[in-house]
Amino acid sequence: MAQKVRIAVDAMGGDFGPSVTVPGCARALERRPDSHFLLIGDEKAIRAELANHPALAAVSEVRHSDVSIRMDDKPSQALRYGRRVSSMWMAVEAVKKGDADVAVSAGNTGALMAMSKICLRMLTGVERPALACLWPTLRGHSIVLDVGASIGANASQLVALAIMGSAMARVILGIDRPSVGLLNVGTEEIKGVEEVKAAAAILRESDLPGLAYSGFVEGDGIGAGAVDVVVTEGFTGNITLKTAEGTAKQIRAYIRAAMSGSLLAKLAYLLARGVFEELRGKMDTRAINGGVFLGLDGLVIKSHGGTDSVGFARAVEIGYEMAQSDLLNRIRDTVAIAHRFESGSADPSNPPQEAAQ
Amino acid sequence: MAQKVRIAVDAMGGDFGPSVTVPGCARALERRPDSHFLLIGDEKAIRAELANHPALAAVSEVRHSDVSIRMDDKPSQALRYGRRVSSMWMAVEAVKKGDADVAVSAGNTGALMAMSKICLRMLTGVERPALACLWPTLRGHSIVLDVGASIGANASQLVALAIMGSAMARVILGIDRPSVGLLNVGTEEIKGVEEVKAAAAILRESDLPGLAYSGFVEGDGIGAGAVDVVVTEGFTGNITLKTAEGTAKQIRAYIRAAMSGSLLAKLAYLLARGVFEELRGKMDTRAINGGVFLGLDGLVIKSHGGTDSVGFARAVEIGYEMAQSDLLNRIRDTVAIAHRFESGSADPSNPPQEAAQ
Repeated sequence: MAQKVRIAVDAMGGDFGPSVTVPGCARALERRPDSHFLLIGDEKAIRAELANHPALAAVSEVRHSDVSIRMDDKPSQALRYGRRVSSMWMAVEAVKKGDADVAVSAGNTGALMAMSKICLRMLTGVERPALACLWPTLRGHSIVLDVGASIGANASQLVALAIMGSAMARVILGIDRPSVGLLNVGTEEIKGVEEVKAAAAILRESDLPGLAYSGFVEGDGIGAGAVDVVVTEGFTGNITLKTAEGTAKQIRAYIRAAMSGSLLAKLAYLLARGVFEELRGKMDTRAINGGVFLGLDGLVIKSHGGTDSVGFARAVEIGYEMAQSDLLNRIRDTVAIAHRFESGSADPSNPPQEAAQ
Repeated sequence: MAQKVRIAVDAMGGDFGPSVTVPGCARALERRPDSHFLLIGDEKAIRAELANHPALAAVSEVRHSDVSIRMDDKPSQALRYGRRVSSMWMAVEAVKKGDADVAVSAGNTGALMAMSKICLRMLTGVERPALACLWPTLRGHSIVLDVGASIGANASQLVALAIMGSAMARVILGIDRPSVGLLNVGTEEIKGVEEVKAAAAILRESDLPGLAYSGFVEGDGIGAGAVDVVVTEGFTGNITLKTAEGTAKQIRAYIRAAMSGSLLAKLAYLLARGVFEELRGKMDTRAINGGVFLGLDGLVIKSHGGTDSVGFARAVEIGYEMAQSDLLNRIRDTVAIAHRFESGSADPSNPPQEAAQ
């Protein structure tokens, strides 16, 4: 992609709106100078923030919207007052229309997913969207999905997650045939819920191109980097991600307390400040901010609602990376191939189940 | 309890058997000198280890068993060859017979649960066991359950977990009316799976004595100490616990690498070694080793299979604490009260669901 990456931003999304999203974009621009921004929301508020960031202002277009989606509204409510007119909808629509390569929002997850589904539609062969994140591990990064787009999954929906996650791993991690694990309570064959066991059987037997199924992964296998792609349904995935973030925050608080305690500790901190800064960077949950919606016919990135400009910048950068690597077309191709591969063999042996999960 | 706490130990359980369990008991004895041990398993192997721990030998009785339960066997297999004769069964049976106040095993979780259910039976009013753990938080400790005893839960099973968890919190944390949260993907009312929402309605409306229902808790609320008792079903609970442990291990590895890097970092480490030791203690997942089976008519503690003697000692100590605080009778009383309280009001509005989770 020789031309600039065009990023549509729901400037009103998240807990803080333009006061976080605009500085976030400015920060992302420093690291990704070939970006172009389409900032959508209350023009006055956006321009006020842009005044502090002339470099960003120079590569941004502002599109006015009167309507912001509230963080706590149900998707149906959000659609009622926000369809076509809200900053969130307009950001997604910019991708649909071809005005942007990717949309980024820190707004209400459910509303963003509903609007993205309606506006962009699903890729052929994909039932519903998933939210994928890059998870830092001791071996580098893994992709974990679904971290909250859809609650519950039957066996074929889990297999679809495996396929989309592997496509993302090929593009983002540069691994030709990524290893894929199903998140479960034990590594033995006997364990786990029925849907996960059924998905394991399909993945093992169908031997899909472009992914290497590696069996079950337990919770502590994620951070250890046991596999390149960790697959689970959105309830467990969301709780798992937030638990890991919470644990990192908790340990940061312990370190802060320990390092400000005794005089010796303070001295040690001063001596090795660079080391501590590096450590802080590694434990910074803002560094993994930015979930990628997979399965839609267009690129949409979800940032945490409560993040600051550093975290929002990271979400924008993830959007940039996905757009630049042409993730969407890669996923489209993989799904199409897997679909041809699967049809007739896996489907009859695994009718969609009524998963109450 | 003026007399000694009598602890029955499945000495063969876990990945390493007596070479970990016996030194573990010796370590626990140092901190809990009024313990008495019943060590069950291969007498020769146990005595060989005991030779190195004379203080433990002085307060231990050895009971021989030829049969050890393998870590990967299904519960049904384990029962077939291990019922009545295995070290695991005999440890649980010692509680049943009144020879011990509590049983501790690092063996196969499924087998331990199956044997405990058959041998000890469930408390009146409880359908099935749960595994509860003490989770260190920024505010102290919380109780999290179920971390892996039963997969999936309908609304009334989640309510039962809330009741048993609160009884444990009253005893162990000394909180009169512990706050209880349901683990979910969002704190808003609209979110989450049906069973969790139905359990929330029951807990809110029934206003059970002895617990204060506080709504939904997200994954990052656990470590923050948002509530005293976090309730979830065993699939998500087990993955959540292991993910947190994995994240702590990962960060320990980062710290180790950072501190052994530059000369300055090494010097800083030497200067503030005490601080780092303290920090290591706080992040040591072995400190939370030892899950408590709740709902059985007897006390059984499950240690991680792969732990070392430090971790096994902690599981033994947790057993000691539970026995000394008379956890079992407190839970029995609470369940009986809640049952009387619930019957007629909550039951008809919430028939058990066919939860596929």
